Amino acid sequence: MATARTRLSSDQRRSQLLDLGVRLFSTRSLSEISIDLLAERAGISRGLLYHYFGGLAGFQEAVVRRAADDLIARTAPPESGDAVERLLISMEAYVEYVDTHYEGYLSLITGAKSGNETLRRIYDEGRSALTDRIFTSDTDHLLEDTPAARLLVRGWAALAEEMVLEWKRDETSGTDPGISREELLHLITAALPALSTTL
Amino acid sequence: MATARTRLSSDQRRSQLLDLGVRLFSTRSLSEISIDLLAERAGISRGLLYHYFGGLAGFQEAVVRRAADDLIARTAPPESGDAVERLLISMEAYVEYVDTHYEGYLSLITGAKSGNETLRRIYDEGRSALTDRIFTSDTDHLLEDTPAARLLVRGWAALAEEMVLEWKRDETSGTDPGISREELLHLITAALPALSTTL
Repeated sequence: MATARTRLSSDQRRSQLLDLGVRLFSTRSLSEISIDLLAERAGISRGLLYHYFGGLAGFQEAVVRRAADDLIARTAPPESGDAVERLLISMEAYVEYVDTHYEGYLSLITGAKSGNETLRRIYDEGRSALTDRIFTSDTDHLLEDTPAARLLVRGWAALAEEMVLEWKRDETSGTDPGISREELLHLITAALPALSTTL
Repeated sequence: MATARTRLSSDQRRSQLLDLGVRLFSTRSLSEISIDLLAERAGISRGLLYHYFGGLAGFQEAVVRRAADDLIARTAPPESGDAVERLLISMEAYVEYVDTHYEGYLSLITGAKSGNETLRRIYDEGRSALTDRIFTSDTDHLLEDTPAARLLVRGWAALAEEMVLEWKRDETSGTDPGISREELLHLITAALPALSTTL
């Protein structure tokens, strides 16, 4: 009984640290999540971090993995309904996510593209989860599953990411992005059906 | 006279080194262009590199700048003609460039996204040159110049880059990309007029 209770409490403690990490990650880049910051916010020492995550890098990776899982879960489209309507709901959650987790999302991309293999894998898995959904849905499909369509959907995901990040970057720097969040959402959602006509 | 001749010869020597750098850069990442490699290929010493470029980093940046200028020049569309036709010619040069300079192009992107400010600026300038052309052409326009259209064209450039890199990555790793270079070219070129219907 004592062992079971200790194990549970240890899991809970680990989970609490991850929750804190994900909260910090939404407004901070990964490199800003330091031992000092964790000590200040939650009294976490280097020893405790090593105990639960094998060190700061292990903690940062666990945070990014949970953030990616969170993004994938939030952007899951409804199981049934019109394909474009389902895509719109999914992309609405995506725009909302990047809008509210800008710094963290940006640092995941930076880490992934700068050659950190773990971050690249997590980023690629997140990207694949989003693009694979277009083809694995049980209801009506927007595109037939072909190599050309798969490549096009990857291109569309890059387009969506670039447009949301550019829009958010303008907003963050105090520049008027020129279009509203609703217009942005319309453009990235309408892009996929429009692109599918070129196949 | 002697001074003028020396200066010219110095410029020529600098230019020759840059040409070599760009050639090396087409099949190697930036980090693989080392002092040792330059010494082996052209007898360039650390001192000579310092003299002309202030060091290896300065040389690498000068190589990337020349490569970016080269990409911008090669992908310049013809001055007149049908807008879609001109876009096709421009994108054909783009696909050809990435196809033949894959390693270098990839390392420019990696450097730009990993927080090297100089590389990011060169990359952004290259990207802007490609996207601004869509709006600054003297002949018929594919899109009206609005903030939404500017953002959409940036998204389209990200789509094109992602698709070419994915296609080339498959090809490089011996995986069948599933579509030919002609089909790829068709998809990224047809994407822009298709996207413009969503504005």
